[in-house]
Amino acid sequence: MKEVNASIITIGDELLIGQTIDTNSAFIAKELNKIGIWIKRKLAVADTKEEILSALDLQSKDSDIVIITGGLGPTADDITKPALCEFFKSELIINEGALENVKNIFKQLGRLVTDRNTKQAEVLSNCKVLENKRGTAPGMWFNHNDMIYVSLPGVPHEMKGLMVDAVIPEIRKTFALPAVVHKTLLTAGIGESDLADKLQDFEDSLPLHIKLAYLPSYGMVRLRLTAKNNDVHDLEPEVLEHFTTLKTITREWLVIDEDLSIQEAIFILLNERGKTLSTAESCTGGYIAHLITSIAGSSKIFNGSIISYANDVKTNLLKVDEKTLKEVGAVSEETVLEMLKGLLSQFNTDYGLATSGIMGPTGGSEEKPVGTVWIAVGKKGNMKAKKFKFRFDRKRNIELTAFAALNMLRKWILEEEAG
Amino acid sequence: MKEVNASIITIGDELLIGQTIDTNSAFIAKELNKIGIWIKRKLAVADTKEEILSALDLQSKDSDIVIITGGLGPTADDITKPALCEFFKSELIINEGALENVKNIFKQLGRLVTDRNTKQAEVLSNCKVLENKRGTAPGMWFNHNDMIYVSLPGVPHEMKGLMVDAVIPEIRKTFALPAVVHKTLLTAGIGESDLADKLQDFEDSLPLHIKLAYLPSYGMVRLRLTAKNNDVHDLEPEVLEHFTTLKTITREWLVIDEDLSIQEAIFILLNERGKTLSTAESCTGGYIAHLITSIAGSSKIFNGSIISYANDVKTNLLKVDEKTLKEVGAVSEETVLEMLKGLLSQFNTDYGLATSGIMGPTGGSEEKPVGTVWIAVGKKGNMKAKKFKFRFDRKRNIELTAFAALNMLRKWILEEEAG
Repeated sequence: MKEVNASIITIGDELLIGQTIDTNSAFIAKELNKIGIWIKRKLAVADTKEEILSALDLQSKDSDIVIITGGLGPTADDITKPALCEFFKSELIINEGALENVKNIFKQLGRLVTDRNTKQAEVLSNCKVLENKRGTAPGMWFNHNDMIYVSLPGVPHEMKGLMVDAVIPEIRKTFALPAVVHKTLLTAGIGESDLADKLQDFEDSLPLHIKLAYLPSYGMVRLRLTAKNNDVHDLEPEVLEHFTTLKTITREWLVIDEDLSIQEAIFILLNERGKTLSTAESCTGGYIAHLITSIAGSSKIFNGSIISYANDVKTNLLKVDEKTLKEVGAVSEETVLEMLKGLLSQFNTDYGLATSGIMGPTGGSEEKPVGTVWIAVGKKGNMKAKKFKFRFDRKRNIELTAFAALNMLRKWILEEEAG
Repeated sequence: MKEVNASIITIGDELLIGQTIDTNSAFIAKELNKIGIWIKRKLAVADTKEEILSALDLQSKDSDIVIITGGLGPTADDITKPALCEFFKSELIINEGALENVKNIFKQLGRLVTDRNTKQAEVLSNCKVLENKRGTAPGMWFNHNDMIYVSLPGVPHEMKGLMVDAVIPEIRKTFALPAVVHKTLLTAGIGESDLADKLQDFEDSLPLHIKLAYLPSYGMVRLRLTAKNNDVHDLEPEVLEHFTTLKTITREWLVIDEDLSIQEAIFILLNERGKTLSTAESCTGGYIAHLITSIAGSSKIFNGSIISYANDVKTNLLKVDEKTLKEVGAVSEETVLEMLKGLLSQFNTDYGLATSGIMGPTGGSEEKPVGTVWIAVGKKGNMKAKKFKFRFDRKRNIELTAFAALNMLRKWILEEEAG
């Protein structure tokens, strides 16, 4: 079995001026990776015919599949279709299904279809049309010189829908793909290089077709074992054996043995126990609540929050003593514990967490520099507070505080259970 | 004056398996763009010497500057330095300043320096070292074949610090750069293709050295005029004249005439008026509070929130009538207005906003499908509610609801002022 390689071309000036962060190519890579296709290269180019053509030439050299996103919009700078016409020596024709789709979308929006919009229904005459249920620009699939080219719109949710509904199934039909097994776990509380030291012997002992990857993010490190074998056989038992060893070595820092975020781990932990959580957030300003409520079904485990950004919200709603604020300040063990106590007394919740800190860039002092954070977790009658010190910019300090709070809560729940 | 072009190489398997979304290259592009340097191309490649070398060859063809990020970490898969050694025919040496920095960082962390860590202080013998104040891997600046190559760590806040503190000033010293002026405004409530129709004549009337870009995001469209001229003269008055015309044409949808987000526009609006805001969030789950509190100094205009995810938080804390919830449900005009009223009565705030909706994927009904949202904005004694209908996935529905709420608030404040 031949290895199948893919490459990605993202098209759009907005990518090259830094206006848009490219989330599309990560999604495409993940989806292809799942079915055993390795991405050779990702290339972002401007909305010019010359750049698009040279990108197509480059990516055609050593890839079996080239996925192209962007430049299919209705404005003058969207030039992907003319460039593809030149590359394939093809021409544009109106696709009736796509035209029907454009008309339907505008009907639903209660708007008139203009010439500009009907151009969205033009496709290359040599393509197989991939129906776009979420927008006006259809996807296009090309067989050309023993390779596959796929052109998708750049709007993320349209691209994602087309990848999952049309491109992946079509690729599965077209290629004989290798067996691939991924097993991922999440650690917290240990850095990448310390983990690497502890895992050196383990890594050396892995067979050649199983690789270990370190994937750090937000002060946590994800570890991923990937087994890939062209002789189709069941890799699962072999990977599981190594994964069990990996879990044993990392048990002290193990958050969850699946490819999930820490908020998803908390969701599972609480949901399994039928418990609920509420938050009292000062410095995280709702970010923890946002992380949790981004999970579908989170209403099962999440009651709500009081975001006490102003001190009078701390005193009025969370019943923090004014004396406490005056004597030790908002960023203190006493305040964060009183915030948690106030939260637990008012919310019909099992567990709570509270945060108070200085996220920067201003507001720091010698005694309490930017990055000083107090976090409290617990339940009625059993609370714990801990001080943290982060040293980054505002955005990252907020993120690290949120993830530290969730990890502190997780450990507290497990310790409390252990008794 | 010669045009200065740059290209970016991002290195790391994590980019090609989709584990990491590349935010670095957008930041680099933005910073270079500001000083009149255009990015030709962004290329992401795997952690292999072969791929890195072929990327360096490709990007060297038509760029004056190549910025390389990633692959400088302490683990075995970090291969950028050996690849650069081969490319430049150079060798690794220990840099004393960088070694001192590694030791200091570990001392601060209260940890021992291992061999793995001291390797972080190795740099290429032909580079100028760019001191990294935020991490262990120094940046490296190379003059090679009349081009500039810069190698930076992949950790975003380290890379950003090095770009701003060292790379940009060094580039300014090295090249004679063109005059560049950007003027950006943000619109809400009109789609890209409708805007393009309204702006066709304006766009046609622009001189060749001034370009208009459409930058859509989250149901809003940013419009950017960029003037670039190699003969250094003051482009500002000319651009301002066109920008004034652009503002006039788009005045109905204009949020702010700066390159800011809608939450930043709200911050400015409230701060100028000395007013404060609080939020009562159900379906947005704290996301609006998070957007606002991400802005440095937001405590001046933001009091806090009640995130009433569970219905009993709506009744207990926001004083929503149980009868209302029973009779018309949580996602209704009545509930969202009662939420806002309850919020305004309890928070010492000038303005408030409230959200309640069904974000999906479950929870929808025929009468109230996924994407149904009620938003209320206002102040004590003067409130307004409006129904919205979004049709995307959970993440995007939350985002669109938050931005719609902020825009509704903005318009309400301006209308109220107009009387």
